[in-house]
Amino acid sequence: MTVQRTVFFVSDRTGITAETLGHSLITQFDGLNFRQVTLPFISSIDKAKAAVDRINHTAREEGVRPVVFSTMVDDGILAVLNEADALVLDFFATFIGPLEQELSLKSSHTAGKAHGVGNEAVYTARIDAMNFALANDDGVTTRNYGQADVVLVGVSRSGKTPTSLYLALQFGVYAANYPLTEEELGTEILPQALLDHRDKLYGLSIDPVRLRQIRSERRPDSRYASEQQVRYELKEAETLFMKYGVPFLNTTHSSIEEIATTVLDQKGLARRFY
Amino acid sequence: MTVQRTVFFVSDRTGITAETLGHSLITQFDGLNFRQVTLPFISSIDKAKAAVDRINHTAREEGVRPVVFSTMVDDGILAVLNEADALVLDFFATFIGPLEQELSLKSSHTAGKAHGVGNEAVYTARIDAMNFALANDDGVTTRNYGQADVVLVGVSRSGKTPTSLYLALQFGVYAANYPLTEEELGTEILPQALLDHRDKLYGLSIDPVRLRQIRSERRPDSRYASEQQVRYELKEAETLFMKYGVPFLNTTHSSIEEIATTVLDQKGLARRFY
Repeated sequence: MTVQRTVFFVSDRTGITAETLGHSLITQFDGLNFRQVTLPFISSIDKAKAAVDRINHTAREEGVRPVVFSTMVDDGILAVLNEADALVLDFFATFIGPLEQELSLKSSHTAGKAHGVGNEAVYTARIDAMNFALANDDGVTTRNYGQADVVLVGVSRSGKTPTSLYLALQFGVYAANYPLTEEELGTEILPQALLDHRDKLYGLSIDPVRLRQIRSERRPDSRYASEQQVRYELKEAETLFMKYGVPFLNTTHSSIEEIATTVLDQKGLARRFY
Repeated sequence: MTVQRTVFFVSDRTGITAETLGHSLITQFDGLNFRQVTLPFISSIDKAKAAVDRINHTAREEGVRPVVFSTMVDDGILAVLNEADALVLDFFATFIGPLEQELSLKSSHTAGKAHGVGNEAVYTARIDAMNFALANDDGVTTRNYGQADVVLVGVSRSGKTPTSLYLALQFGVYAANYPLTEEELGTEILPQALLDHRDKLYGLSIDPVRLRQIRSERRPDSRYASEQQVRYELKEAETLFMKYGVPFLNTTHSSIEEIATTVLDQKGLARRFY
């Protein structure tokens, strides 16, 4: 039987930072079954006390103390959290000290700066990039490629749309995407609209077995999901990428984050914000 | 003059974890101008040496040592990075020890587990949620609300689409969204399709001044962006929310992360993955 440990992500704001790092850390421990609970917006002493009650309740129920990953800006609220019957690892408290010393500066101790709207320019850049991705999804138009930072190219269900949207929301990057259909695949010629922006092209490929699986969920027993079709499309697509010198990635074992950051890295694209 | 400090986010994988926490930390220091550079996929000794060269070059050029936030799973590669002329704060190294002790377990020291494709079920859940958001965006259909986890409701440009997509990509939540147009606003009656799923509704509102600004960028000097129209729509929308007991959030000072996590928290929605 796998032992269960409960992990709490506690934050005075969204909890995303605590989740991201905490999740990265616990994935390093195989063989344990982690139950993950996020407690966001713990921004007062009373809310912190309620969180502690909940953590202590879990400790009693499970007979083992939980692990708490937290990002608390306010020392007073953190002090309450530290009273919990748990291993409390606060990311801010751990690093703010060394940073203050290095930068010869006191931190402002203000909650929610990281995922706050910050400045409206960032918000606007992000929404504009998202609208660009939506308006230039799936080759619906090729007119706006002049504005694009990157144009993702690949066969149906190779991961173009989620990657485009992730690039927009996470990095503010303008990503269009274009599906390779039988038209391009048969002729082995990329359309002129793509050739006009050849330096912006990035290819996505995927293993045939995985693609069949994905397409079968959408249209079971179709030609679209057949082994022959999938193998043909992928072979032709990679032939096109190589013929035109389009860099490409096999996405089979990659998450959307990995695909997006690889595109960013390999194309040398700049983020519009952090 | 604002002093510039360069901050590097260095990782053997995507760098997203290092960026997220590092960015949260530096936003606590006002009055400094941070130049942020991500060096992802530093997964070998040679790449680490190249990264150190780059960091040291910056140190020499700027006359002050940079700050390095890193997430390196491999101790050997981290040892190289630690030689840099910089304050190196490695998030894994700091917390893996206390965690190993608490869990009585050695960590696997495997790179890229956090943002790896992990298991295909997670990937599929995420893509399915994204496809749901796209297929049920902007009230294009109301047929699938039975499958929705939440239906966001608000006037045009109140943040519905980015929030829906973020909920899908980050949490695997099925979010549809429905725009309140003059039809609903004039009658003060929500359409039956929404009333049938009243417990799934969540309203987004925004300050009139900010909404005018957003709409003006899209259609300058239009009736759509006029003060009168914007004030009317927002007043009527909030009247509807209150009449039907729909919880709602004023998004003016919130980032997409904050809106999405607030929706999750207030509606008590479960994430489909971490």
